[in-house]
Amino acid sequence: MRPTVAGEAFLTDRIAIIGAGPSGMALLRAFESAEKAGAEIPEIVCYEKQDDWGGQWNYSWRTGTDRYGEPVHSSMYRNLWSNGPKEILEFADYTFDEHFGKPISSYPPREVLWDYIDGRLKNSDVKDKVRFATAVRWVEYDDVTRTFSVTVHDLRENRTETNKFDYLVVGSGHFTFPNFPTFAGIESFPGEIVHAHSFRGAEHFANKDVLMVGGSYSAEDIGSQAYKMGARSVTMSYRSRPMGYDWPEGMEEQPVIDRIDGSTVYFSNGVNKHFDAIVLCTGYLHHYPFLPTDLALDSPNNVYPDHLYRGVVAEANNRLFYIGAQDQWLTFNMFDAQAWFVRDIILGRFVLPSPEEQREHIGEWRERFHDLATTEEEIDFQVDYVRDLIEQTDYPMFDLDEVARIQKGWVQDKKNDIMGYRNAVYHSVMTGTLAATHHTEWINELDDSMERYLSMPEHDEAREVVRGTVTSGARAAR
Amino acid sequence: MRPTVAGEAFLTDRIAIIGAGPSGMALLRAFESAEKAGAEIPEIVCYEKQDDWGGQWNYSWRTGTDRYGEPVHSSMYRNLWSNGPKEILEFADYTFDEHFGKPISSYPPREVLWDYIDGRLKNSDVKDKVRFATAVRWVEYDDVTRTFSVTVHDLRENRTETNKFDYLVVGSGHFTFPNFPTFAGIESFPGEIVHAHSFRGAEHFANKDVLMVGGSYSAEDIGSQAYKMGARSVTMSYRSRPMGYDWPEGMEEQPVIDRIDGSTVYFSNGVNKHFDAIVLCTGYLHHYPFLPTDLALDSPNNVYPDHLYRGVVAEANNRLFYIGAQDQWLTFNMFDAQAWFVRDIILGRFVLPSPEEQREHIGEWRERFHDLATTEEEIDFQVDYVRDLIEQTDYPMFDLDEVARIQKGWVQDKKNDIMGYRNAVYHSVMTGTLAATHHTEWINELDDSMERYLSMPEHDEAREVVRGTVTSGARAAR
Repeated sequence: MRPTVAGEAFLTDRIAIIGAGPSGMALLRAFESAEKAGAEIPEIVCYEKQDDWGGQWNYSWRTGTDRYGEPVHSSMYRNLWSNGPKEILEFADYTFDEHFGKPISSYPPREVLWDYIDGRLKNSDVKDKVRFATAVRWVEYDDVTRTFSVTVHDLRENRTETNKFDYLVVGSGHFTFPNFPTFAGIESFPGEIVHAHSFRGAEHFANKDVLMVGGSYSAEDIGSQAYKMGARSVTMSYRSRPMGYDWPEGMEEQPVIDRIDGSTVYFSNGVNKHFDAIVLCTGYLHHYPFLPTDLALDSPNNVYPDHLYRGVVAEANNRLFYIGAQDQWLTFNMFDAQAWFVRDIILGRFVLPSPEEQREHIGEWRERFHDLATTEEEIDFQVDYVRDLIEQTDYPMFDLDEVARIQKGWVQDKKNDIMGYRNAVYHSVMTGTLAATHHTEWINELDDSMERYLSMPEHDEAREVVRGTVTSGARAAR
Repeated sequence: MRPTVAGEAFLTDRIAIIGAGPSGMALLRAFESAEKAGAEIPEIVCYEKQDDWGGQWNYSWRTGTDRYGEPVHSSMYRNLWSNGPKEILEFADYTFDEHFGKPISSYPPREVLWDYIDGRLKNSDVKDKVRFATAVRWVEYDDVTRTFSVTVHDLRENRTETNKFDYLVVGSGHFTFPNFPTFAGIESFPGEIVHAHSFRGAEHFANKDVLMVGGSYSAEDIGSQAYKMGARSVTMSYRSRPMGYDWPEGMEEQPVIDRIDGSTVYFSNGVNKHFDAIVLCTGYLHHYPFLPTDLALDSPNNVYPDHLYRGVVAEANNRLFYIGAQDQWLTFNMFDAQAWFVRDIILGRFVLPSPEEQREHIGEWRERFHDLATTEEEIDFQVDYVRDLIEQTDYPMFDLDEVARIQKGWVQDKKNDIMGYRNAVYHSVMTGTLAATHHTEWINELDDSMERYLSMPEHDEAREVVRGTVTSGARAAR
């Protein structure tokens, strides 16, 4: 085993990546990019338990476990459109213009975003490095040989095997395993109870009174989906503070649940209400059931988990990396920044500082993280983090101040019109292109397919199409 | 490491049991019984990922994953009453009479059965042998030392650790991981889709058109629950043959699904129908994600899986055992028969035959299994299997022919009255006691609590109580 020294080729080293979602794909791209530029790269094996890549963006109608008995990874649902403008997540080395060949709107639906991340890699041969339908069962690290033993289950072949690697990169995400709090009386609530992770569509909430438990993005968006699909009422229960948007009639916020009795939910302010269904929008756990606890990241969901040098290098083991472990204002391009940096460490282009220096660096950023007081400050913090990473590598730098401005504009757009903020359009930070005004507003669009999205119906025709597919009670038909 | 020779004490040996459901509890009881009779028993550690024992009978309102992020074990739902008479599952060494002190009905609800299996052990100290909230992550077997390395995750302490054992007993069950087939168009079905594993109650199917996909016990019972709770219609879709019961008005069987378009399901006979919800009653997988595939049982659900000598000893590794791996006509007392037999192998009281003789023995039973043509023959087969096991041990023999007669009577009762078969009462095979006629028929009872079950309301009062709790549209109110 050799030390990672700049300029040396590492042809005998091997890298395991866990997960071929946007994070794992970013690292595959990072190495591909280096290889195309003439570098020799180590052998890479990426283990992905799903049948295709894309992670969260790979929609599955199944909930709970998949066809192999493995926990379903994706929390994606029908009619999900990006809840942030695409201009803040655009790849610096593969633009929306390049992929679609024309301007598209700022808030594309799920299939369109999956197509974009797939498009960057599908014409390369990196997919050959991915072992699909292969679940990682258990990882062990040997201090003497400095190798990871990675035991996997090839689900299609029904065969377990163990392979050794010099580096391990965890890109399995942290929006898969529900945080599942309980409430007095919930065990006998007679209606449907589903965690946001297993929510697949709000159509059947038409004419129902539905409760979202939670005060963050899931409650906001699934609550809005329920409103859009014609729910009789949508109530969102917050723990600490209300979201405070200007909700349309039929949507309201209530404080935390005190108890549940039959189908009646009692909130802490004394209000009680009948509900037909409860959606637990209560967040997710960092959960790595394939890792010993001394290697597993143990953190709440936040923008700077402890014990990761520059947000990616495990402090306890510098051959172990996490990509995408942060709560995310930026997404795809932040994963890119992290992936390029991890790649350069493995290639010896970036020499890690001493443990003491790593600790000090983490401490400085954690201190700054703890001082964050506003949404705007948190956006600036993550933008600074990404800038710091990109400065270490050859990933194309882009105007991160402009990204922060777009983010803050988006925050304001939502305050102005929570049901209409997806009508806004932004200029690409990468190409300057102004996004297209979409042919149909989110609130009226019931067909979230890419075919429909990329079509150019005349305005009136579009409305007709939409009306033609409206289900009974859906808001769009009103 | 010493060979297992009859009569020798094995105080240095260690046994790991995976799962503290009825199978694991049976083995704990078996060793406790030997110890009380004066035997020295090995050290036992039972790993249970739930917070309490009881396996399937330990109801959880959660679905998908539990509060620790682990797959939810139990497929139990509200208002589940035993779907077979309790007289066929009664423990030979702990009767219902002993536990309840009075006759109870032949079809108790879930909480009552949990209380019964808990009652046999709760006054002993065997619970100390169970590590609750501890998930088994990975098992390895070392051919040289002949030990199992069992890596577990203590979920409350968030700590992984590895311990070595001489014997491993798998009692994790095979009704936990859904068999999850797909159907053309299901990904855009707008209603609720849930596998039987995640079904928790049919109250919210009132006034709905619901589809059960499947033609076995889950479809029958969940379909009946939906009918009881006032579903507008219940359709059950079979793959091979209809159940053929005399369903009440509003329930019907259809053949396999051809495709789904929106909320309309097309069956293979050309019939199509709108549905509000789909329950996938499509069975379960043998799935042991903690085992290398050379140790994991790979079998469909049937009454005699291959590669298990006498249904419990892994042919490939005679230090590995499975309890409860069969499809079940008998349940609790079959697990007992298996547990006593496994115990006696480990204690050296039963000496295993040669690999060739094991193979021959398995082959004979598998041949007989393949010849089974009728339900009645399958019942007799499993009764013979249990008798053969009990004859090897000191488990109290009971009248297994009578058990078979009760089973066959139950089959006929269901043919006579699928909604009323739970009104029948049987004599205990163990004590001769005639079961009590329950105060409320299953179809009218909406409170499945043990308190309600064990109460003795006057008949008219009982009806009043029931009517008082009826939810809108429930069948009982009609």
